[in-house]
Amino acid sequence: MSRLSDLVAKHQGLLDKAIEAAAARGYWAAYPEMPSGKIYGETAKDDGEAAFKAALNQPFALDVPGASGTVGAEQSPFGFDLGITYPKADVSAVIAAAQAALPGWRKATPLERAAVCAEILERLNKKSYEIAFAVMHTTGQAFMMAFQAGGPHAQDRGLEAVVYALKAQTDVPGGEVVWDKPQGKNPPLVMKKRFHVAPRGVSVMIGCSTFPTWNGYPGLFASLATGNPVIVKPHPGAVLPLAITLKIAREVLAEAGFDPNLLILAADSADAPITKDLCQRPEVKIIDFTGSSAFGTWLEDNCRQAVVYTEKAGVNFVIIESTNDFKGMIRNMSFTLSLYTGQMCTTTQNIFIPKGGIDTEDGHKSFDEVVQALATGVDKFLSDPARAVEVLGAVQNPATAARIADAAKLGEVVLPSKTLDHPYLPGARVHTPTIIKLSKADEAAYTQECFGPVSFVIAVDDADDAIALARKTAMEHGAITAGLYSAKDDVIEKTTEACLDAQVALSVNLNGGVFVNQTAAFSDFHATGGNPSANASLADYAFVANRFRFVGVRVPA
Amino acid sequence: MSRLSDLVAKHQGLLDKAIEAAAARGYWAAYPEMPSGKIYGETAKDDGEAAFKAALNQPFALDVPGASGTVGAEQSPFGFDLGITYPKADVSAVIAAAQAALPGWRKATPLERAAVCAEILERLNKKSYEIAFAVMHTTGQAFMMAFQAGGPHAQDRGLEAVVYALKAQTDVPGGEVVWDKPQGKNPPLVMKKRFHVAPRGVSVMIGCSTFPTWNGYPGLFASLATGNPVIVKPHPGAVLPLAITLKIAREVLAEAGFDPNLLILAADSADAPITKDLCQRPEVKIIDFTGSSAFGTWLEDNCRQAVVYTEKAGVNFVIIESTNDFKGMIRNMSFTLSLYTGQMCTTTQNIFIPKGGIDTEDGHKSFDEVVQALATGVDKFLSDPARAVEVLGAVQNPATAARIADAAKLGEVVLPSKTLDHPYLPGARVHTPTIIKLSKADEAAYTQECFGPVSFVIAVDDADDAIALARKTAMEHGAITAGLYSAKDDVIEKTTEACLDAQVALSVNLNGGVFVNQTAAFSDFHATGGNPSANASLADYAFVANRFRFVGVRVPA
Repeated sequence: MSRLSDLVAKHQGLLDKAIEAAAARGYWAAYPEMPSGKIYGETAKDDGEAAFKAALNQPFALDVPGASGTVGAEQSPFGFDLGITYPKADVSAVIAAAQAALPGWRKATPLERAAVCAEILERLNKKSYEIAFAVMHTTGQAFMMAFQAGGPHAQDRGLEAVVYALKAQTDVPGGEVVWDKPQGKNPPLVMKKRFHVAPRGVSVMIGCSTFPTWNGYPGLFASLATGNPVIVKPHPGAVLPLAITLKIAREVLAEAGFDPNLLILAADSADAPITKDLCQRPEVKIIDFTGSSAFGTWLEDNCRQAVVYTEKAGVNFVIIESTNDFKGMIRNMSFTLSLYTGQMCTTTQNIFIPKGGIDTEDGHKSFDEVVQALATGVDKFLSDPARAVEVLGAVQNPATAARIADAAKLGEVVLPSKTLDHPYLPGARVHTPTIIKLSKADEAAYTQECFGPVSFVIAVDDADDAIALARKTAMEHGAITAGLYSAKDDVIEKTTEACLDAQVALSVNLNGGVFVNQTAAFSDFHATGGNPSANASLADYAFVANRFRFVGVRVPA
Repeated sequence: MSRLSDLVAKHQGLLDKAIEAAAARGYWAAYPEMPSGKIYGETAKDDGEAAFKAALNQPFALDVPGASGTVGAEQSPFGFDLGITYPKADVSAVIAAAQAALPGWRKATPLERAAVCAEILERLNKKSYEIAFAVMHTTGQAFMMAFQAGGPHAQDRGLEAVVYALKAQTDVPGGEVVWDKPQGKNPPLVMKKRFHVAPRGVSVMIGCSTFPTWNGYPGLFASLATGNPVIVKPHPGAVLPLAITLKIAREVLAEAGFDPNLLILAADSADAPITKDLCQRPEVKIIDFTGSSAFGTWLEDNCRQAVVYTEKAGVNFVIIESTNDFKGMIRNMSFTLSLYTGQMCTTTQNIFIPKGGIDTEDGHKSFDEVVQALATGVDKFLSDPARAVEVLGAVQNPATAARIADAAKLGEVVLPSKTLDHPYLPGARVHTPTIIKLSKADEAAYTQECFGPVSFVIAVDDADDAIALARKTAMEHGAITAGLYSAKDDVIEKTTEACLDAQVALSVNLNGGVFVNQTAAFSDFHATGGNPSANASLADYAFVANRFRFVGVRVPA
């Protein structure tokens, strides 16, 4: 057996299970989310930390075709410079190398490609601790989140893209098909046909600074699994997690007999960015991007030669109409607003509450009582700094911290942001969330994404007003997540209809351990692709089926 | 049982068979292609012709919300004015009516929508003769082609889109899903989830003048089956086939309990076109277009609020490298170049032949001998006018006829075009194809689509040169079809690789009753969507999966 058929035999069962899971949409995960020695090995954490530390203040050893010189200026949001340098990519050289890698990969079957991808993910999984430290010290995520979201959850999202790609490619028979058309009394017309999976061409994945692996793996694996080489252009502030990823992945590709240049790191620096040049090259046929609306829209407008998948900004909302579990609601929302200092694309920004207040299991509460309870809830939740920093993490970008002060000018600050001293990482950029009271008229403020730990509580006339406003803002300005607290079926029904119109996923009455800003691979879709916050969803057929084309070849039998 | 559940029961078997057929890709058709009295009823042809004639010189009775006044100036390419008028659409009114129709249709299940679509197609099938006469006398197709391509083949392509839509929508469970995540010793997290199919919104299908039903039904049914209302904007020269279609379809929708305004005819006139205004409206979320590259590109560039599916121009090619059946090749290509006077988006334009000639079963033939054989083949095939007009049909647009004379200036005319008198339809615009010899240097001529009965024979250095040139022209200028004649495995292999690069379907050594310009639904894809000739393929997951979005709603159990 060849190395490749070994990989197919090894991973066929996992791929089958993943396909079943994606179809069933119940709970399933391929990679364990608990950073436990029993699962990952008793020395795994120490090994991972040691590997991370060994990488610091060194050139990162990774082959990048045609690179000359180095770049690298990553700073940990927890207060130190990484000091790592990476080969500086040359746009023409990486494109040429990626193109040269394509034909051999195209010859593999979809199942073979999926098995190679599954092997890459398995190896990445084993390095989850090392990747976790890399994610933590580039994004500012606290360790537990960096491990889970940066490791197994990202790997699950990667595998999800792989199996959707496999399903889409195998929708049509891979082997020879005989087409036999009766012609009455005459002999039938008989053709032999083969439907080749033809990858579109060079793919570019543009990494983001907050979730380089979680937001990056779906596009990377969707393109790779459908036969395309992928040039990975990391954010200059979060290169290491993707550099480690590619180092591991390139080893797997080479071992399986493929050109490792199917995955190339194209690192650049903030002062000499290559992304526009790279993405406008005619050879680039697919682009995946997570980041600002401005740059996402630029890509969509200026890279017309490529299929462009973007996740951009939005104004996520929660409507608080009534509840039978006021405490659970406050607890749940306090966690949501605090997690990773609001730096998730799924964090709630706009909280719509009727000005007349809401009904709860403890009777009616006024608008101000609800707002105050939320402010107090967040404050209490973060009252112990040692515990708080493990939820908050650190702020990735100083500009995000600066936005807190700007936001304070927009309305009445009902919860001021505080800076916290990290108990064991001095210099960490730790801020608590702020909550600001706005009126319905402050549309200019709440219809823009204010990325970071800033939420707005907005008094609305009533439930219908809240729903109409939420629907409108999501349709016009985008939203990845929506939440509703209501004890009334008709309100739930109306909000659901509004969310179908605005094409935003809805979480209702979350009061426990599931949060509006978290989605589970193989069950929840991340974004719908149907409003301005994103033009694609993780992961569905639309995310994978246009990364390759079926090319039929027919010949008379 | 409701009317709707009756329809599901009635069509479930057909839908299942169609899904199987699309997965197997062997021969299968839902609707019989033979215009036979035994199949369609002994009076069907007379009834269809009578219905067509009764429609002439009348206002067409079709409800169009908000219409005022009429439009209509269709002329039969066979030599008479149709004299039919249609309600003149108001853009705002048709959009408002379409939007109002959406919510009720969204509530139906994907299977219910598919069953309603199948019922529409069944009723259309029964009216295939009437539609055939309408197609014939708007497009210029000869009767047999108008019947087959305009009737059953178009219906098959419609059904194909319906079942792909059904597959994509039912990829995720339609009912409630329980998500149950273990929490070690603690109780599991349990969520109830529902994944709603949310249609994108108002869809516009822009009809073309040559294949109003065949090119129109896929987008129309893909959008409708995924829950979107469809505004049908016919070409002013080919309204009737789509008006009949909508009249039938609206009856089915109403009988099934839905708003007939899910399908609205938006007719305009050539001197007051509404297409740009309609397609730029923010409410329009999906556009399907077949036609010129100029307008297709305009739609892609200017209707960024919508998902835009375009089929545009291309430069289809055949490479003649060698053959073991010279006569069969010439016969096959003569039919291809003649059928519908070359007015198919799939007709071969560029014929690349090595300047040193080719090997055949009768020995070597020089370049000029091959060219001459092709010219003679076409000429002989069309030597009997009565038979010729049943293949050629008539030229839809006088501009196409004018292009023949322009093309004669481009190179040496090896087969001049002739005008023919139609034996029983005086005034019919009948022209035979022209073949023009170009050199490799005449790139400016052969890298543009010269729509209509114009083909170029181009002398190239050798097989490799032919393949390289074909690949380049297809990648840069698009191609929907590619053909190769070669008796050599390595040439077939190299051409296949080139077609994978250029993402164009390839037909090899066609010498019998299958032609490069014809594709079979449920087996061949029409266009790949991977080169400038089209950004979508009929029909695959990519064609349907982005017409709706999954919107998850989750609530703690």
